[in-house]
Amino acid sequence: MEKIINIQDEQTISFRNQVDFCVGTGRMDLALQEEYLKQLALVQAEIGFRYIRGHGLFSEGMAIYHEYVNEQGETVPEYNFTYLDRVMDAYLKLNIRPFLELGFMPKQLASGSQTVFYWQGNVTPPKDYRNWQKLVTATLQHLIQRYGQEVFTWPIEVWNEPNLAGFWQEADMAEYFKLFSVTFKAVKEVDPRFQVGGPAICGVDDERWLREFLQYCQQQGIALDAVTRHFYTVSAPETCGHYSYMALRAPEESLQELTTSRKIIDSFPAFRGLPMHITEFNTSYRPDTPLHDTVKNAAYIAQLLAVLGQTSASYSYWTFGDVFEEQGVPFTPFHGGFGLVANGNIPKPTFWTFAFFKRLQGKAIYQDETCVLVKTDTGYRGVAWNYSPTERTKCFSIPESSQEYSFVAEIVDEKSGNPLKVWHDLGQPRSLTPGQQKLLQLAAQPRVESQRLQSAMLTIALPPYGVCYFELKAIATQPDRGFDAEKIGLV
Amino acid sequence: MEKIINIQDEQTISFRNQVDFCVGTGRMDLALQEEYLKQLALVQAEIGFRYIRGHGLFSEGMAIYHEYVNEQGETVPEYNFTYLDRVMDAYLKLNIRPFLELGFMPKQLASGSQTVFYWQGNVTPPKDYRNWQKLVTATLQHLIQRYGQEVFTWPIEVWNEPNLAGFWQEADMAEYFKLFSVTFKAVKEVDPRFQVGGPAICGVDDERWLREFLQYCQQQGIALDAVTRHFYTVSAPETCGHYSYMALRAPEESLQELTTSRKIIDSFPAFRGLPMHITEFNTSYRPDTPLHDTVKNAAYIAQLLAVLGQTSASYSYWTFGDVFEEQGVPFTPFHGGFGLVANGNIPKPTFWTFAFFKRLQGKAIYQDETCVLVKTDTGYRGVAWNYSPTERTKCFSIPESSQEYSFVAEIVDEKSGNPLKVWHDLGQPRSLTPGQQKLLQLAAQPRVESQRLQSAMLTIALPPYGVCYFELKAIATQPDRGFDAEKIGLV
Amino acid sequence: MEKIINIQDEQTISFRNQVDFCVGTGRMDLALQEEYLKQLALVQAEIGFRYIRGHGLFSEGMAIYHEYVNEQGETVPEYNFTYLDRVMDAYLKLNIRPFLELGFMPKQLASGSQTVFYWQGNVTPPKDYRNWQKLVTATLQHLIQRYGQEVFTWPIEVWNEPNLAGFWQEADMAEYFKLFSVTFKAVKEVDPRFQVGGPAICGVDDERWLREFLQYCQQQGIALDAVTRHFYTVSAPETCGHYSYMALRAPEESLQELTTSRKIIDSFPAFRGLPMHITEFNTSYRPDTPLHDTVKNAAYIAQLLAVLGQTSASYSYWTFGDVFEEQGVPFTPFHGGFGLVANGNIPKPTFWTFAFFKRLQGKAIYQDETCVLVKTDTGYRGVAWNYSPTERTKCFSIPESSQEYSFVAEIVDEKSGNPLKVWHDLGQPRSLTPGQQKLLQLAAQPRVESQRLQSAMLTIALPPYGVCYFELKAIATQPDRGFDAEKIGLV
Amino acid sequence: MEKIINIQDEQTISFRNQVDFCVGTGRMDLALQEEYLKQLALVQAEIGFRYIRGHGLFSEGMAIYHEYVNEQGETVPEYNFTYLDRVMDAYLKLNIRPFLELGFMPKQLASGSQTVFYWQGNVTPPKDYRNWQKLVTATLQHLIQRYGQEVFTWPIEVWNEPNLAGFWQEADMAEYFKLFSVTFKAVKEVDPRFQVGGPAICGVDDERWLREFLQYCQQQGIALDAVTRHFYTVSAPETCGHYSYMALRAPEESLQELTTSRKIIDSFPAFRGLPMHITEFNTSYRPDTPLHDTVKNAAYIAQLLAVLGQTSASYSYWTFGDVFEEQGVPFTPFHGGFGLVANGNIPKPTFWTFAFFKRLQGKAIYQDETCVLVKTDTGYRGVAWNYSPTERTKCFSIPESSQEYSFVAEIVDEKSGNPLKVWHDLGQPRSLTPGQQKLLQLAAQPRVESQRLQSAMLTIALPPYGVCYFELKAIATQPDRGFDAEKIGLV
Repeated sequence: MEKIINIQDEQTISFRNQVDFCVGTGRMDLALQEEYLKQLALVQAEIGFRYIRGHGLFSEGMAIYHEYVNEQGETVPEYNFTYLDRVMDAYLKLNIRPFLELGFMPKQLASGSQTVFYWQGNVTPPKDYRNWQKLVTATLQHLIQRYGQEVFTWPIEVWNEPNLAGFWQEADMAEYFKLFSVTFKAVKEVDPRFQVGGPAICGVDDERWLREFLQYCQQQGIALDAVTRHFYTVSAPETCGHYSYMALRAPEESLQELTTSRKIIDSFPAFRGLPMHITEFNTSYRPDTPLHDTVKNAAYIAQLLAVLGQTSASYSYWTFGDVFEEQGVPFTPFHGGFGLVANGNIPKPTFWTFAFFKRLQGKAIYQDETCVLVKTDTGYRGVAWNYSPTERTKCFSIPESSQEYSFVAEIVDEKSGNPLKVWHDLGQPRSLTPGQQKLLQLAAQPRVESQRLQSAMLTIALPPYGVCYFELKAIATQPDRGFDAEKIGLV
Repeated sequence: MEKIINIQDEQTISFRNQVDFCVGTGRMDLALQEEYLKQLALVQAEIGFRYIRGHGLFSEGMAIYHEYVNEQGETVPEYNFTYLDRVMDAYLKLNIRPFLELGFMPKQLASGSQTVFYWQGNVTPPKDYRNWQKLVTATLQHLIQRYGQEVFTWPIEVWNEPNLAGFWQEADMAEYFKLFSVTFKAVKEVDPRFQVGGPAICGVDDERWLREFLQYCQQQGIALDAVTRHFYTVSAPETCGHYSYMALRAPEESLQELTTSRKIIDSFPAFRGLPMHITEFNTSYRPDTPLHDTVKNAAYIAQLLAVLGQTSASYSYWTFGDVFEEQGVPFTPFHGGFGLVANGNIPKPTFWTFAFFKRLQGKAIYQDETCVLVKTDTGYRGVAWNYSPTERTKCFSIPESSQEYSFVAEIVDEKSGNPLKVWHDLGQPRSLTPGQQKLLQLAAQPRVESQRLQSAMLTIALPPYGVCYFELKAIATQPDRGFDAEKIGLV
Repeated sequence: MEKIINIQDEQTISFRNQVDFCVGTGRMDLALQEEYLKQLALVQAEIGFRYIRGHGLFSEGMAIYHEYVNEQGETVPEYNFTYLDRVMDAYLKLNIRPFLELGFMPKQLASGSQTVFYWQGNVTPPKDYRNWQKLVTATLQHLIQRYGQEVFTWPIEVWNEPNLAGFWQEADMAEYFKLFSVTFKAVKEVDPRFQVGGPAICGVDDERWLREFLQYCQQQGIALDAVTRHFYTVSAPETCGHYSYMALRAPEESLQELTTSRKIIDSFPAFRGLPMHITEFNTSYRPDTPLHDTVKNAAYIAQLLAVLGQTSASYSYWTFGDVFEEQGVPFTPFHGGFGLVANGNIPKPTFWTFAFFKRLQGKAIYQDETCVLVKTDTGYRGVAWNYSPTERTKCFSIPESSQEYSFVAEIVDEKSGNPLKVWHDLGQPRSLTPGQQKLLQLAAQPRVESQRLQSAMLTIALPPYGVCYFELKAIATQPDRGFDAEKIGLV
Repeated sequence: MEKIINIQDEQTISFRNQVDFCVGTGRMDLALQEEYLKQLALVQAEIGFRYIRGHGLFSEGMAIYHEYVNEQGETVPEYNFTYLDRVMDAYLKLNIRPFLELGFMPKQLASGSQTVFYWQGNVTPPKDYRNWQKLVTATLQHLIQRYGQEVFTWPIEVWNEPNLAGFWQEADMAEYFKLFSVTFKAVKEVDPRFQVGGPAICGVDDERWLREFLQYCQQQGIALDAVTRHFYTVSAPETCGHYSYMALRAPEESLQELTTSRKIIDSFPAFRGLPMHITEFNTSYRPDTPLHDTVKNAAYIAQLLAVLGQTSASYSYWTFGDVFEEQGVPFTPFHGGFGLVANGNIPKPTFWTFAFFKRLQGKAIYQDETCVLVKTDTGYRGVAWNYSPTERTKCFSIPESSQEYSFVAEIVDEKSGNPLKVWHDLGQPRSLTPGQQKLLQLAAQPRVESQRLQSAMLTIALPPYGVCYFELKAIATQPDRGFDAEKIGLV
């Protein structure tokens, strides 16, 4: 039998909810696309993130940096902000702002030809650091001129995962520190209010990188504003055709990485308590992982959202949508992409994990390994989840203040809010007909359950890999004159 | 144990599907309202009716008929088509056309002061039949001028339920016949292509009215284009506060009315086989009947939609939405209105009965008391229902042509697609917050179920008062290279 | 020759711009209509008013007040806020709030049967002042419950033009004072933060009414928050068929009324400096005045907008749009209605007078009888007008700070922004085809004129009855590399 | 003095209006972008083309063709139609269909590395013609499966401008003929209903190419469905910075090219009368030509639209919009792009030339070098233009049938519908503020002129480089009762 959890309104717990601080995106110029913007609009309507972070600001697709030979025969840079404006306008219209990742290297400014991804982002140092510095300066100044003072509040990060040779030529640490130093100064000269962070590393050789980076900053007197890093929770993948399969690590095991980072930061007196932003996280770090599209992923991520705030100032899910081209263009609507939303604008189960956590505003009063509860002006809100293959039950006893309560819940599990299953049962169509798309969008919605409670005892059944959002409120209103719920079989 | 129904593709049955021919509406000038148009847009998107019929074309709200004294001191009529144009434009934009009910009487043209409804439609004969005839003529000519040749295809009906004293002063049969005769001639003089019907009676003293009406037409040489009548299936209501409660009659008992009407028509050699349009039908004839909002209503209406085509050329559900004022303005979003859609643009269970039947295009191959099946190019579609308080099961054996089948279903029952229950559990709020409205719209959606079938045997479980739409198709596509449904727990 | 006006940046003048404080509307339930909301959306997009005021909150169309006999045989009131919520939701969605006019009398609460307007607003005192007070209380409490604290900022006015016997039975002053007193107390008991004003009089016997009203308030210790009155500027109309024609009074003559009111208010020590809100103003007080639709009206109103702030806290143009039924439903799209927008969503010339004044944000630095100028961060903005049948010219000399200036203007006159003329030339069609509507919307736009100025001398030609908005800014940007304006004939 | 043109209703002339048959576009994957779709939506709303043709169907951006090594160690192709579906869906939603240009070469299928354009389309022959043929087949079969029978009506063209070495390696004629032959057969094997054309040449060495191509087809027994070619009308450009400047050739001189092509085709008995589609035309063939954005361009194009139908089955303006990357991403909103619409969704003058010609439906009854007139059911429609620097006048005498006529015109010239001038006067801003964008969209509209004519004599003043659309109709309606145009100064 389940133990009964006694809820007391005056409790407060240290649950820090930064679920909506930031979300990841495919390379920046994909934001020119209509399907991308539709998916982002859906995400913003249901979740509403403050910032969005991705690669490619300075890559060819954004077409910002150019060189030409002037009348004096000198090669000089010129800047094209046509696409940058278009992307920023689109973001602001959807009430989201960029978390600016400064990178990769414009082809004309690059010292080498190494690229990353299907879309060929150049990952070599600048051939001329002064022109890099000018590019950073010109870009920020342009943004300030167009968007005003608010630009100072847009967080800035320097490059992406320089600890991987794939992302930064030879994973050359000294060169990265140089890049960081030059960039940090350039930004602060534009305006010292900008918040600049690094080293944007992933979990490979991360302890050494973080220590050396902080040491470097300390030595150079760089007044770092934030540490940034990434966080993925799977073991090594096995690849088959277009897809990768792998095991999930236990959350407590994965989270160790973050605790360690936190400790390293706090071990530097100059940086103790400095915000640590997880500028990417997800289960798998590959965009071809069918796991991403499952309810299992949704329940696992719920576990993380409940605790990531303990170590980190924010945690940015990689990514909001499936318009994404790092490994090429996906062949099918469901293809294991990172997105909260599948192509065809179909929310995946994990979408709801985020939407549900977003609603946990108010005073947090209870938390355990499978739920979080907050108290609002009018009652209680909670999210509960079940990362296991068997149904579980949670029982709450709430303080009595009314004769009758309204309980409503939205639930995602294998049967509801699980469009991957329906897509599979439809025969895995590659090109969705309008009817199939509509059906999948319908199948992607959580199911609603509701009841009136006559007592202060609440029991919630959690199906396997289920994620459940619920609200509990005292009922005040009288029925309309003559309305009789019994006569029509409602009670 | 359930018997197994053997489906054979070459069967054809006489199921006539006119579910989308026409739908009812509150008085015409309510079509000026935004909420009305939103509900109609939803109905058209999911169901898509061809015609819409309601009262009030000539009533004060449409402001068409006016009299003034000219310079010669004569009282002469003038016509104002400002609102008529606005309503017709709105209808056409939503791809629906009027089934024109000519009535009620403009106040300035009325011979008496008797009115019907909260909105006071005048129900007395014209004080001057020539001006009535001119009004009909001017209105049709205006419509033709504005909308062109298609106007001739808009069906026309003369007045509403003259067999009730409430709708036609003293239920004066001779006076109605005069009105019909004058109107019929006026319309046919504008253009003989118009199809004109009557007597638009309800089920009170209906046999006598129908016989006498047809006799009158026969004697007068009126080449009637259609007979019109109404059809409601409840016993006398008991009223309490703002609401009415009553029992549903067994369908076979109710349907007797229509069979009788059909026989009466066919007994007149001149009118044998004449189309009979049911220009209103529903369970209850009162807009304050909570039953309308229930899944019980949805399952009962499914029974009717399966068989109404046997006697009738069409059957127009009364009404598409809950913007309606016959008994005054509703106090709450759910209030037992006639509509397929509740205020707040929330589809009711019966909405889905219509949406599901609409999809039954193709060759009908099987029908019994609880289901209809059609064959399409790519498989089978069906609707099954269960108007009973206990779960039932249906088993179909289909011709084998494939190794694997895709089965998808959409289901409305007490737990899904039942916003009335959730609204009740929320405490029956009178004013919906945006959050409540969104939740109810979500709760109003059918649930989706799907599976892959390895055999040609299909079993459908029908929950109490459930209505289920399903599709069955052979699966052709191969999975994308490397996609393994088993590895991610889908099979 | 025109004199040259020397503009100096450091000047400041007392121009008070309240052009966007409030606007008038037809009766409140017209806000349920789609065409009404389209017109309001257009008005809000281009002008953006804060408040909207009209009649009919408590009239039958809003269906708020009802009485029924309870089980004890007592007649008791009940309230229906269905339409009120729908209207308020629509207003807030368009970012406008109600300036609440409390009136007219619900039929069931009325002591008599006298009505005003085609739509029959009851204008008799309540049969029971306690039930009136309860109605006011219940309505405000409901609004607070639904919309929260912001409701306290919605201004309140008691009744409309009680100094006319048509709007208040017998123009009974004592009875109005009673109504005011009871209502004022009821509102303040709900919450003292509400701002309540009266007596909402028009310019008939207005001096006596205002004096006696203030005296009454003073004697009764009513801490009035604002005085409200109306303002129309035409002589008596001559009527012909559906239309009225009349002469415009000279502005200085009309404005005398306001100066007098201001003096009367300030003569009461308790009320000195009290805000005076003009809760209705326009040229003609009839909705069948073709003058309303002309450029002459636009230029005349410009004269008023420049000076009304001198005496008044606000001035609410009567009305924003032509969905309006006080004299019945209009027969044609242009019909001399009060609206800034004609039916078919076509802005009239006066619409632009408001749009242009709305843009005069910034520090006002110059004003004369035909223009107002403000200084902004980046240059100058102005509105100039010419209420005369001959072209005039204005010359400004501006402080030099740049080598080149950009001048852009938007102009409305007989040739541009004058859809009435085009509608007339089209043959005055009663029902607009989609093509005609589009053409009229195009013809309703101001024309744009622009030039580069090489000197600090600006000359503006004002055509007859023209209204002109202009901006002047220094040019900073360099042309794109290689762009040569001369080669393509731009200079 | 102008001569008077006597219009006679019974005249008919041979004006063939194919203005809306087809329009050009930047490379196909740009259709994924939101700005592209906005511009196309504007174009479709005002002009409404049937087909759209551009490059890049098989280039990297569409990501259709891939090769992988299977388990047997063979390199085999696979196809990805994700983006193709997305683009086609977007086209069909905007009611436009592709004119399929089969090209360029997928990188993995190419025999060489030569590319064209900033976006690097590979222009070498296939390394394996069988795989090219499979690609064509697979693509068409996929389209048929998704979009059904209508796909057979989509015209097909093989490659682009093979007579230029930049577009086809070495401008190798024999290799192109091989490509054409293989492709033609592949298409016809999918379905013989497809209409296939070539050689898609521009005006360089065009006579020889056309003759040899037709000879080849004749010899090989290729039953060609259409000849396709391009048409530009400028002399060689001079380039400066980002821009090109050049002179316009006289139309009669340019048009000679087409007459010659026509003659060559007709000289082949097998191909006499074969449709010739101009699958690209414009003044300049460079996307950096400021001329494109001027009224001069609009008037010049009017000259062409009046006569192109004489030789050609269709003529596709290159291009509909300015989302285009052949020479890189434009730095400024106006930059001399090909588009009818500038970035920021601002129609250019030439946009209106197309919109005006589109309205010339009906029986053409008169044409000269500066105008075309058609007769409609209700009157006359015409387009007149003035490609000259001085104002000109046209006088028409029309058959008398009424006492009064309505004349309305829409005019584009240096003062109206000329956003380039306003953008220049604004200081040529690179990033438009929302206010500037709105102002430019307003300035981009034609001005409306209207009058009532009492006689059958019509005089139209054509300003320098003006294009004018006009309608003339008899006035039938009476004014509304009491409306007096004189009293309000309209006459």
